[in-house]
Amino acid sequence: MLNTVGLLFLCLFSLLSVASEKPKPGPVAADLIANSAASDWRVPDPAHLLYVELPGGRAVIELLPEIAPKHVENIGLLAREGYWNGLAVTRVQDNYVAQWGDPAEKPEDRRKFKTAKEKIDEHELEVGVDRSIRFTPLKEKDAYAAETGFIQGFWAAQDKREGKTWLVHCYGALGVGRDMAPNSGNGSELYVVIGHAPRHLDRNVTVLGRVIDGMEHFSSLPRGHGKLGFYEKSSEHVKIKSIRLGSEVPEKERASLEILRTDTPLFQQWIKARRTRKEEWFRHKAGHVEICNVPIPVRPRSN
Amino acid sequence: MLNTVGLLFLCLFSLLSVASEKPKPGPVAADLIANSAASDWRVPDPAHLLYVELPGGRAVIELLPEIAPKHVENIGLLAREGYWNGLAVTRVQDNYVAQWGDPAEKPEDRRKFKTAKEKIDEHELEVGVDRSIRFTPLKEKDAYAAETGFIQGFWAAQDKREGKTWLVHCYGALGVGRDMAPNSGNGSELYVVIGHAPRHLDRNVTVLGRVIDGMEHFSSLPRGHGKLGFYEKSSEHVKIKSIRLGSEVPEKERASLEILRTDTPLFQQWIKARRTRKEEWFRHKAGHVEICNVPIPVRPRSN
Repeated sequence: MLNTVGLLFLCLFSLLSVASEKPKPGPVAADLIANSAASDWRVPDPAHLLYVELPGGRAVIELLPEIAPKHVENIGLLAREGYWNGLAVTRVQDNYVAQWGDPAEKPEDRRKFKTAKEKIDEHELEVGVDRSIRFTPLKEKDAYAAETGFIQGFWAAQDKREGKTWLVHCYGALGVGRDMAPNSGNGSELYVVIGHAPRHLDRNVTVLGRVIDGMEHFSSLPRGHGKLGFYEKSSEHVKIKSIRLGSEVPEKERASLEILRTDTPLFQQWIKARRTRKEEWFRHKAGHVEICNVPIPVRPRSN
Repeated sequence: MLNTVGLLFLCLFSLLSVASEKPKPGPVAADLIANSAASDWRVPDPAHLLYVELPGGRAVIELLPEIAPKHVENIGLLAREGYWNGLAVTRVQDNYVAQWGDPAEKPEDRRKFKTAKEKIDEHELEVGVDRSIRFTPLKEKDAYAAETGFIQGFWAAQDKREGKTWLVHCYGALGVGRDMAPNSGNGSELYVVIGHAPRHLDRNVTVLGRVIDGMEHFSSLPRGHGKLGFYEKSSEHVKIKSIRLGSEVPEKERASLEILRTDTPLFQQWIKARRTRKEEWFRHKAGHVEICNVPIPVRPRSN
């Protein structure tokens, strides 16, 4: 929404600080990042990362074991046994999800698990509040949940009355595909949200991670034209070279990333700066923000 | 989020009706479409359509003159004079916008207007409530606006106290790029939302249309890696073959589309079906819906 020439004056969405003639009424989001301390960032645990090698490049996904420990463990086993290597992204539905797994049509033709479990007794509807999970609430009311907020760098929601906490379907979120039965997903079919947050899926499927790098390798894939955005021909399938657990990737090949912590005073300022945009370009200050419009910044590690 | 095999049983997001063994507790969204009457649909006026020819295929955008008549008129003049033909998509920022215009860096090198105006005295902040605009409200509270709803098939919001109505930034929305001054956009640089609704842009830029067909030709474009998602090299620019007004396109080349009316009893049922998903697959019924999660269906004309 900036004209090209506007780029010379303003940096609307980047992490760079921008010189301005006028005094600023308060820190803008970019300044907060520029002036952040090392302790405002965390380095993700390589054992909780998935490295997805797609034709266009590498995507890195962070998993949150605390929200669905059995699923995350099983996904780790699948990655370790190389389950997805050579399988494919089979569905890319515009404004919805990119999904991958075994493209074989008949169940008997599908790749067998070596070490992972076929059935996981855990799904979104059963996720209870674990007191050790630190939930940082967002004060805004939400159309879908009693309360939204952040857990360790993930978009989340909770309902204290029901004693439930879950991760929500924001752009880039990772979820576990399932059939009719709520517990029919075992993690072998996963999807990433590539459109407007489909929040009606919250609590229907287990969200347990998000893409922290290389999101474009999912979001810019050609769309499928079959039902639900499945590719119609197997020749359209987007081959997955490999999906590896970060801890299994040789150190020099690893991404060196850090993620802004969501449980800090700085993050509160970040929310505030997103709620009321103080950049000069903004004339109408929303004064509100919605959970999926609070980016959780990721950047290359400083050293 | 469906396993491939689940596709055999369920049609989660398509417009097709699905056979089911169990009796349904009420009409699902797909049934409403299947049982709709001809009068539930409208055919867009070709004079309000933009046909955008991109390398991947054709996108069709519908404009809403009532919301910004001067802008829409100017965009029509630009299309008629072939202003964008041979220009380019210069910016594709992941989870944000795809934007096009004249890629020339120096203002003096830019293509001159033949008939269109360089300056338009109209922008989002000044859009008043026109009593002839029929606003169909959505009952849900919204994080950003006093009230959200629909105007003639477009996602909208209004503030009666302020006497303002505007179109909101949902996925696929078309907006007018601008520089620092709120009235600096003339329509020669336009953008389409390709990610989670950036609602903080509402009332900062004029939204005056939405993509009704071929959205994937914007959303699956390679992402730019410069600041704000601009392509770094001119060789990356995505050439626009042409942008024509629908009424200038030879009849046999035109898209034959119809759009679900948003001011009908059927559309109220549609909202209800999206609010509480009655499809068997859904275990957790949200009971709420947010404006940008109410799709406004478009389909090929029945005859």
